[in-house]
Amino acid sequence: MKRVYLDHNATAPLRPEARAAMNAAMDVVGNPSSVHAEGRQAKGVIERARAQIAAAFGADGADVVFVSGSTEGASLALSGRNLQGSQVEHDAVRAWIDESLSVSPNGSVEVSVPSQSTVQLANSETGIIQTLPNGLAVTDATQAFGKLPVAFNWLGAEMALISAHKLGGPKGIGAVVIKRGTDLAAQIRGGGQEMGRRSGTENLIGIAGFGAAAEAAAQDLANGVWEEVAQIRDNMENALVAGADQTIFVGKDQPRLPNTSCFATPGWKGETQVMQMDLAGFAISAGSACSSGKVRASTVLTAMGYDMTTASSAIRVSLGPGISNDDVLRFADAWRAKEKKHRARVA
Amino acid sequence: MKRVYLDHNATAPLRPEARAAMNAAMDVVGNPSSVHAEGRQAKGVIERARAQIAAAFGADGADVVFVSGSTEGASLALSGRNLQGSQVEHDAVRAWIDESLSVSPNGSVEVSVPSQSTVQLANSETGIIQTLPNGLAVTDATQAFGKLPVAFNWLGAEMALISAHKLGGPKGIGAVVIKRGTDLAAQIRGGGQEMGRRSGTENLIGIAGFGAAAEAAAQDLANGVWEEVAQIRDNMENALVAGADQTIFVGKDQPRLPNTSCFATPGWKGETQVMQMDLAGFAISAGSACSSGKVRASTVLTAMGYDMTTASSAIRVSLGPGISNDDVLRFADAWRAKEKKHRARVA
Repeated sequence: MKRVYLDHNATAPLRPEARAAMNAAMDVVGNPSSVHAEGRQAKGVIERARAQIAAAFGADGADVVFVSGSTEGASLALSGRNLQGSQVEHDAVRAWIDESLSVSPNGSVEVSVPSQSTVQLANSETGIIQTLPNGLAVTDATQAFGKLPVAFNWLGAEMALISAHKLGGPKGIGAVVIKRGTDLAAQIRGGGQEMGRRSGTENLIGIAGFGAAAEAAAQDLANGVWEEVAQIRDNMENALVAGADQTIFVGKDQPRLPNTSCFATPGWKGETQVMQMDLAGFAISAGSACSSGKVRASTVLTAMGYDMTTASSAIRVSLGPGISNDDVLRFADAWRAKEKKHRARVA
Repeated sequence: MKRVYLDHNATAPLRPEARAAMNAAMDVVGNPSSVHAEGRQAKGVIERARAQIAAAFGADGADVVFVSGSTEGASLALSGRNLQGSQVEHDAVRAWIDESLSVSPNGSVEVSVPSQSTVQLANSETGIIQTLPNGLAVTDATQAFGKLPVAFNWLGAEMALISAHKLGGPKGIGAVVIKRGTDLAAQIRGGGQEMGRRSGTENLIGIAGFGAAAEAAAQDLANGVWEEVAQIRDNMENALVAGADQTIFVGKDQPRLPNTSCFATPGWKGETQVMQMDLAGFAISAGSACSSGKVRASTVLTAMGYDMTTASSAIRVSLGPGISNDDVLRFADAWRAKEKKHRARVA
């Protein structure tokens, strides 16, 4: 039986457009910093991708600074600034912030001073979308970019973090998008690449893949692909809920990502469910899968006021454009069978 | 007429083995931090590459921490430590050191306290190879790895910086190799990847390419490929020197990389030569091409005692395994024709 990959928020499969662009970039010989023809050709690949990303992210006129992903992006945009943030942020953001912003039971972050704060655009575990206050210092748009129509120029944030592999580009490349004129001191220094904001020979092949993936993702959005994904996600939740009356669907009534479903069945550990579903042929996750091998209760859910028992029983199912209705109904069947056994065990 | 790429020290063409490994990695769907089957498969790709690199670099038992390249590696290994170093280091290293170590006219760096110092293994511009003192804190092995037989475990250094794209892997991936038990605090934090030393979802495709390229490079070394390259380089220098009696070959009598030739013709600006050769179909560089668009006199040569006029007239020609004797003799002809014109102009 073919496996079904339902962990697109952890990382999405590589889009064919990204693969093609990466293979073309493999034939480009030069270093983008070299002045000869080979160097200029390499530079051209990077500038083309930068323009594709700016267009897809609605960031014309903003600076797109390539980094190795949103984790490095968070370090570049946040470290040393002690901005206010909340416990629903990704660990890569939480590493640098003052966690003083409170989170309401519906998952929304309450900001007092936008220019001194960072708020994610959408949560990786629950999919809950935030309304960003104008003048926000930094937003982590990693999960939103590619799944929602987003225009950086209309977000009202000074900087945004984005990552290729969440929208079908390669892992290991991302960008900090910066309102022109905003200060940002380089952390990785030396050659002066990326307008002096991030040194190091550029990840040419990865950047080419990022540009092509962003363009394809924007096309998908325009074509209504994610509305279909949302419909399939809703079908799955309807199938799951039947009979599982102890299961809590987190953020179901909030604006959330079209592909994400987060649900908790108190008393049935999330990591157990992940392992059981893995054996049954389905890849899902418990909490944020971006953290290396960590297993613990989701701070996203405890910040929203759920107790530890509930939080540690949450799983995340995240779909993508390639997932069919049949895929999710098969998942729902497999999960319900295990849920029934779990209930029998604890009864 | 086909162009001849003689700038391998700036970046080397992608090896077919790296391309194949990268294409295979493109089919791997999971995030290496995910616990499900797809995640474990992705983790396997990374661990395989880590083992290939450790074997090729003679670093069995050492830690190989993946970073986005030697520029990030330098930041990770050097920032905040204020180690002593010299002006012949790469800008990515110079960004973090106390430049108090002197350089002899033959290019060797004089170290007083190895445990508080960093010394490159080979210079990117001249190819000059250093004899490293035992107990050295950090060595930048970026240019040496893949061109010289190097065993980290015998170098006597606590850490080494290496990069994929100098040996035929992709740009944007490298590693800090660390003697087991050596302290190294993460700079990019969050998910805790790379044994807590470097967070962020791994550049899976790039890492796969790095591993395959390192293995192929070690095979080339074992097969004597670089001895042929050295012979071709020497043939080129012999052809260049005929008639060009004002030209100085830097490091010619020193142990140096088999592929590198650095020569200065005082009064004839290096960047002019680069442009003239580019138009004639040859990619070469003036100074270190890893710096973004900078044109200035080489501090490597001034540190060795050359005057500014000589230093600013230096060019670097760097070969690789794909370069034939015919390629370099054509280059020598083209260069000598321009050199003759230059002499007629200034006479």
